[in-house]
Amino acid sequence: MKDCLFCKIIAGEIPSYKVYEDENTFAFLDINPTNIGHTLVVPKKHSRNIFDIKEKDLNNVYQTSQKIAKAIKNSLKPDGINIISNNEPAAGQLVFHTHIHIIPRLANDGFKHWKGKREYKEGEANSIANKIKEKIT
Amino acid sequence: MKDCLFCKIIAGEIPSYKVYEDENTFAFLDINPTNIGHTLVVPKKHSRNIFDIKEKDLNNVYQTSQKIAKAIKNSLKPDGINIISNNEPAAGQLVFHTHIHIIPRLANDGFKHWKGKREYKEGEANSIANKIKEKIT
Repeated sequence: MKDCLFCKIIAGEIPSYKVYEDENTFAFLDINPTNIGHTLVVPKKHSRNIFDIKEKDLNNVYQTSQKIAKAIKNSLKPDGINIISNNEPAAGQLVFHTHIHIIPRLANDGFKHWKGKREYKEGEANSIANKIKEKIT
Repeated sequence: MKDCLFCKIIAGEIPSYKVYEDENTFAFLDINPTNIGHTLVVPKKHSRNIFDIKEKDLNNVYQTSQKIAKAIKNSLKPDGINIISNNEPAAGQLVFHTHIHIIPRLANDGFKHWKGKREYKEGEANSIANKIKEKIT
């Protein structure tokens, strides 16, 4: 897609530290890593995020994510790995081409998970579950 | 699997706010939600996490995650959604049955992403990319 940073990286028009490539996916180092080895996995076919990616591309991008997670585990020996996608700006998405973050974690790297700040009032959890259910297609 | 909290939830031995179920996957509300509507998607077949889940279960669990993300978007109208898996305790995994967090996000909910604190020294990014590449199978 024209003017898409990740489409240009996939096409080799912008350089990257490539980790992996196959027919449908591409993986490269995040140049502003949360931790050393932080890798991004993208489908070659452009989509914006989880809301429009096609089934085949979704399967391919997570199969490659698993491959990369295992390779990071076996090469860099982190203590854990987060696999994250941010969908839309409110969720932290900055580049609008589907990408999965593979983030190696160390036991004492200091990154804190978001604490669950919210609580369901009486009856609310049931009501919310039903609202979501009604929109499943 | 014996003594697995999520296997018991799938089996109905422990109650949950179920959002979705099909032959291979199950989705229910996280009872300590980051935001209201925070849902967990799990494969029915027990695996520990990304390092041992089989290809078919991985595909199924992310197909269901997309279905749930779309349903949350269309019912609760959040501004964005994070899709997260934490693999091993250092990454925040607390229950050792593969699960994907589907977290609705609001533009001003106050959750901050981890800032990239690390930087590659000269030549290091290339060396790290090569180390990962060598372990891809």
